[in-house]
Amino acid sequence: MLARALEGGKMLRPKLVILSAYVANPQAEESAVLAAAEAAELIHCATLAHDDVLDESDLRRGKETLNKTWGTKAGVLLGDYLLARVFALLTETGKADFSMEIITTCGNMICSEIDQSQRLRDLDYWRENYDKVIRDKTASFMSVCCKMGAAIAGGDKDTADILARYGVKAGMAFQIADDLLDMFGTEQVIGKPRGSDLREGKYTLPVLIALDRVDNPHEFRAMITAHEPDVEAAAEIVRKYSLDECRLRARKYAEEAAAELDALPPSEHVDELKRMAFYFIERCDDLIS
Amino acid sequence: MLARALEGGKMLRPKLVILSAYVANPQAEESAVLAAAEAAELIHCATLAHDDVLDESDLRRGKETLNKTWGTKAGVLLGDYLLARVFALLTETGKADFSMEIITTCGNMICSEIDQSQRLRDLDYWRENYDKVIRDKTASFMSVCCKMGAAIAGGDKDTADILARYGVKAGMAFQIADDLLDMFGTEQVIGKPRGSDLREGKYTLPVLIALDRVDNPHEFRAMITAHEPDVEAAAEIVRKYSLDECRLRARKYAEEAAAELDALPPSEHVDELKRMAFYFIERCDDLIS
Repeated sequence: MLARALEGGKMLRPKLVILSAYVANPQAEESAVLAAAEAAELIHCATLAHDDVLDESDLRRGKETLNKTWGTKAGVLLGDYLLARVFALLTETGKADFSMEIITTCGNMICSEIDQSQRLRDLDYWRENYDKVIRDKTASFMSVCCKMGAAIAGGDKDTADILARYGVKAGMAFQIADDLLDMFGTEQVIGKPRGSDLREGKYTLPVLIALDRVDNPHEFRAMITAHEPDVEAAAEIVRKYSLDECRLRARKYAEEAAAELDALPPSEHVDELKRMAFYFIERCDDLIS
Repeated sequence: MLARALEGGKMLRPKLVILSAYVANPQAEESAVLAAAEAAELIHCATLAHDDVLDESDLRRGKETLNKTWGTKAGVLLGDYLLARVFALLTETGKADFSMEIITTCGNMICSEIDQSQRLRDLDYWRENYDKVIRDKTASFMSVCCKMGAAIAGGDKDTADILARYGVKAGMAFQIADDLLDMFGTEQVIGKPRGSDLREGKYTLPVLIALDRVDNPHEFRAMITAHEPDVEAAAEIVRKYSLDECRLRARKYAEEAAAELDALPPSEHVDELKRMAFYFIERCDDLIS
């Protein structure tokens, strides 16, 4: 069960931790860096396990979700267990300051999820809060992964701050691309049915921009707020009215993320972080073009 | 939502923390003791929030459960939020050793719940594992509450060990009484419908002892493993065949718990802990007689 929760992931968050650690200090102690990287991935897996329960999802990373195979109970409890393991790992690091920061970020992620769970199909809420939602849900945690790497490596505060800013922007880019993938990806690639967000009443940037630009917004609003929205029809409208703008915004965030790192001494790890920011947006290119 | 999760509890676990702290050191620093007590209650509330989701319960402490009022999502997420708050509190105490012990105990509680969730209606499992189940579910955590109190107060190891042994035994007594209450209590007193354990396929001591003593065990086995068991009929059989034995076993644990404390210097706090162990079993006396 534990193995299932961990398999098939892209391991982006541990990569952010590890690269940030070696950017901050090329002589960082390997075991501490790996512990922090493990904590980052476990937090991510715990949130996925609980997200799948919340969304009653059947598929994740192309396989049955834990809740589908073993029931809701298993999904909730495995998420709990992963969280307990994370906090054990963090406590073992002995760095209370940065443990607090990670825990606070987790708390904010959870509060944001609670907020969202009460606002499904509330189009005005998503329109006003989309940036905040993706920051709380994805970007802040990626930022903390970068800071965690810098902190565990004993890096200086300026470097940690630069990496933290990189993490927020890369995370914003990642989530916009992810929201596009949810709408246009094949089930084989995104590992779950396309259009999940729309069906669950979560309105993301592709839909929100289209709503501002479409010729008949009343009709489009009715389409996306329907109890069982026509995902394919909505995707065609998004493709016509907002796809290009979404990709531009995602690219802008990726470029800003990379530019933050120009303040650091050049290194292969800095280059790799820059490449990651662009990978975050380019992973959907083939699918959408 | 947060207020609802906390209201109406008996606050037994924070009481264990506080009394143990002042037993271990009458000059214990109040703010640290209260932080540990708060962490204990938050862990308990988090497990209740998730238990109610797992059991799809509608009532808790006489009020609608969070999942009933706000949905499964809210129940899962509020439990997560409470856990994050707990770990923040524990990190703030700066006592990594005892944070680790609490987190490990939480991990064991969760593993035990996962195990149980896969063994509902498996009578042989419950027969072989009842003691372990109630130790992992209740007694170990009460024991940790006592140790946490002693640790936060800076008490010596011998005192902490005595309090930990008291906590396990008091917890065993508590859970046996709780299992009796689940079968015989009124909804008004137990705050949820009677017979929940049996309906969910959790076989507790009252049922397990009755199964060993009843004249026609095949018939009783069929009754309790039915998809919708006749709770009232089962309760009558338990009343006849195992109620007295359950009460004796609970009392024996309470007496052993109190006896552990005889190794400590007498004090009002020691007396209060002894009274608590007996309160744990006596709270069901009126209902059952």
